Amino acid sequence: MVILTLNCGSSSAKYQVYDWDKKDVIGVGIVERIGQKESNIEQKAPGKENFEAVKSCPDHKVAVEWIMETLVDPDHGCMEDMSSIKAVGHRMVHGAETFTKSVIVNNDVLAMMESVNQLAPLHNPANLTGIRAAQQVLPDVPHCAVMDTAWHQTMPDTSFMYALPYDWYKDYKVRRYGFHGTSYVYTAKRASVLLGKDPMKTNLIIAHIGNGSSICAVKDGKSYDTSMGMTPLEGLMMGTRSGDIDPAIVTYMMGRKNLSPEEMDSTLNKKSGILGITEEYIDRRDVHSNAEKGNKQCLLAQDMETYRIRKYVGAYYAALGKVDAIVFTAGVGEMNPTYRLKSLKGLEALGIIIDEKKNAVSRSRNAETCISTEDSPVKIFVIPTDEELVMTEDAYALMNGTYDVHTNFSYSFQSPDYRNKSRDTALPGDIAKNPELEGILAL
Amino acid sequence: MVILTLNCGSSSAKYQVYDWDKKDVIGVGIVERIGQKESNIEQKAPGKENFEAVKSCPDHKVAVEWIMETLVDPDHGCMEDMSSIKAVGHRMVHGAETFTKSVIVNNDVLAMMESVNQLAPLHNPANLTGIRAAQQVLPDVPHCAVMDTAWHQTMPDTSFMYALPYDWYKDYKVRRYGFHGTSYVYTAKRASVLLGKDPMKTNLIIAHIGNGSSICAVKDGKSYDTSMGMTPLEGLMMGTRSGDIDPAIVTYMMGRKNLSPEEMDSTLNKKSGILGITEEYIDRRDVHSNAEKGNKQCLLAQDMETYRIRKYVGAYYAALGKVDAIVFTAGVGEMNPTYRLKSLKGLEALGIIIDEKKNAVSRSRNAETCISTEDSPVKIFVIPTDEELVMTEDAYALMNGTYDVHTNFSYSFQSPDYRNKSRDTALPGDIAKNPELEGILAL
Repeated sequence: MVILTLNCGSSSAKYQVYDWDKKDVIGVGIVERIGQKESNIEQKAPGKENFEAVKSCPDHKVAVEWIMETLVDPDHGCMEDMSSIKAVGHRMVHGAETFTKSVIVNNDVLAMMESVNQLAPLHNPANLTGIRAAQQVLPDVPHCAVMDTAWHQTMPDTSFMYALPYDWYKDYKVRRYGFHGTSYVYTAKRASVLLGKDPMKTNLIIAHIGNGSSICAVKDGKSYDTSMGMTPLEGLMMGTRSGDIDPAIVTYMMGRKNLSPEEMDSTLNKKSGILGITEEYIDRRDVHSNAEKGNKQCLLAQDMETYRIRKYVGAYYAALGKVDAIVFTAGVGEMNPTYRLKSLKGLEALGIIIDEKKNAVSRSRNAETCISTEDSPVKIFVIPTDEELVMTEDAYALMNGTYDVHTNFSYSFQSPDYRNKSRDTALPGDIAKNPELEGILAL
Repeated sequence: MVILTLNCGSSSAKYQVYDWDKKDVIGVGIVERIGQKESNIEQKAPGKENFEAVKSCPDHKVAVEWIMETLVDPDHGCMEDMSSIKAVGHRMVHGAETFTKSVIVNNDVLAMMESVNQLAPLHNPANLTGIRAAQQVLPDVPHCAVMDTAWHQTMPDTSFMYALPYDWYKDYKVRRYGFHGTSYVYTAKRASVLLGKDPMKTNLIIAHIGNGSSICAVKDGKSYDTSMGMTPLEGLMMGTRSGDIDPAIVTYMMGRKNLSPEEMDSTLNKKSGILGITEEYIDRRDVHSNAEKGNKQCLLAQDMETYRIRKYVGAYYAALGKVDAIVFTAGVGEMNPTYRLKSLKGLEALGIIIDEKKNAVSRSRNAETCISTEDSPVKIFVIPTDEELVMTEDAYALMNGTYDVHTNFSYSFQSPDYRNKSRDTALPGDIAKNPELEGILAL
């Protein structure tokens, strides 16, 4: 039995196939440029050659059909036929206040999702298109929606309310929702295991630092506050998003440059952040290497980004009062020791003591490491995230009738025996290649 | 010899007269509703009856003339004739990057101020009108401009840059400026005295909580970061200002409610904050008494406001790494123990331990108190601010040729012998009325 997970953007569809019996990923892939003249697919399956192909793929339904063909292909596929798929887990960005946990999609659920499209106009319509396409291609299995916002529905009103006219909340649902919830479910549960603590008695600050970045204060195992807001624009500095700014800048610059609301929105989301400051780069590896070569705007971007992470760590420390561990996850959080060091160095007065040597060797997406000193009152973990595994388990449990909200549910990865599998199934885990890591493995 | 300080808004002019030889305030007052049919003046001078009057006051020049008449009035005035005034200190809200310290106003300075009017369209034109009016009435004395932003010009670029297109900074001066600088000069220097430390080796977090609120991280005696930004809208929740929000809300709500940029700006500045959440109140005393009576929106407003102060304290603690003291100042900061307690309770892990009893009795604008426990690693002070004294001393020193930026200048209130005088000159200091205060006086 396998579970398929799908993450559909406006012109792409990422997928993963998980073999429930083997407890392992047997295939991952992506279709890109859906709706353009030439679409392309890339697929990796352990023991098979990587597969790439190009063809016309006018819509998401054709894309899902193409994925199915590729998955059952005798040469580079990973299963014999589509009937092995027993459930599909779909990523949804925005579930507003309606969805506090994952759900099986039916017509009522689709209607509710459509009603919140305006809160995430770039993401939700594409997610919905993907669900409808997959329902057509796989009509006989449950399709489950896993919302990025669901994890954060435990936030108190002091965290989620904005100091705006109260009727904007009542009438237009203007509030903090938060995102990256599926990643926080995984990393929060894993951090509790690494601490040897009851997850419902664990306080954490989790920094999900990738192209999009957010940070979450976890109190007694539940989301208490987070940096992304009504949309994924607020909070930390990101690849192309501004994060926090003086809101008066929005109307000021619309006036100075005669920008429409749409143009302003696009500038804040697509031309700001690291790209805005460096005027050239988004990838933190480029920023880092150019900063080292003396590019001042790259150094500024790096220092600004890490300074803001540092401030949020302090803010959430004060919000929680007591913190068991700080967790770094996602691409930059997992792979970039410079960013972690710049974010946390010099916080001894707060009981956060980073071990520079351990931090320097922790750059793996396949190992959980502890990079604080032995005597650091607050532990610092690097935990590679696995959103697909959460989606897979939610879909399986929903199909099976055993699912519940994360506070009443135990995931496989909450077992002390669980070891995270190589994220890139075509590559062997790199622990063997990096014996230095052995000294700092968290488990 | 006396120094006059003037703080002109669009329809008001506040003033204070300081007797340099006696080192005391000899008169304070305000003209309101300038330009309306009936303007009114209120003046207090020690040993004289309070004076109130109404007349038509079409512009700021007439207002300043009225102030002069009232100041030299034999019955309720405080000086024999205008020639005692040797310098005037004017409050300017926005000095952009041009002004890093106070200056004597000349035509070049006026031209520079006009060039930054667009950054503070509500405040700077009114401030300029006041300067020009006072120059006409008092043409033979130096007029000095004291900028709210000057103190913050020591901030590093990591603090003052926004993650926006870089040319918005170069071409439109979009950056964090910060405000309340004159208040921070006073309270930072006073906190150093209370700590018995060199001001240039002192790290502080100063919360200026009034109708407008901001918070400042002070590193080695200099502004390192602050919550207000390009304008006074950003940061903490205020009486009618939203403070921090997801910037995407601005364009989203413009679209949903069909608001112009001006209407949106006005809503964020005048209909949000505490007024937005409570839908009724601005004054924290009303919010507090109604919260105690069970008004949920008032309780939410109070909890939101203090939660945000708490988060900024944590953020700036992490930014500074080491903090000697946290300071509360301005109306709410000085007078409202509930807000201070809610902001700081439960921060023992950060070395911030508030003494609930000392905090409860500290509600005076005439006494500096220490409200942390004896063993709190970080001290907590309540320091009544005195912006007028800074303006007075800047104006005196500018006239005298002894002025320099605060890092190279020593104010009278930096002397260990200095005692702050009663803020309300018509009332005796209330220390005598409140013997409980004696136990927590900071000096």
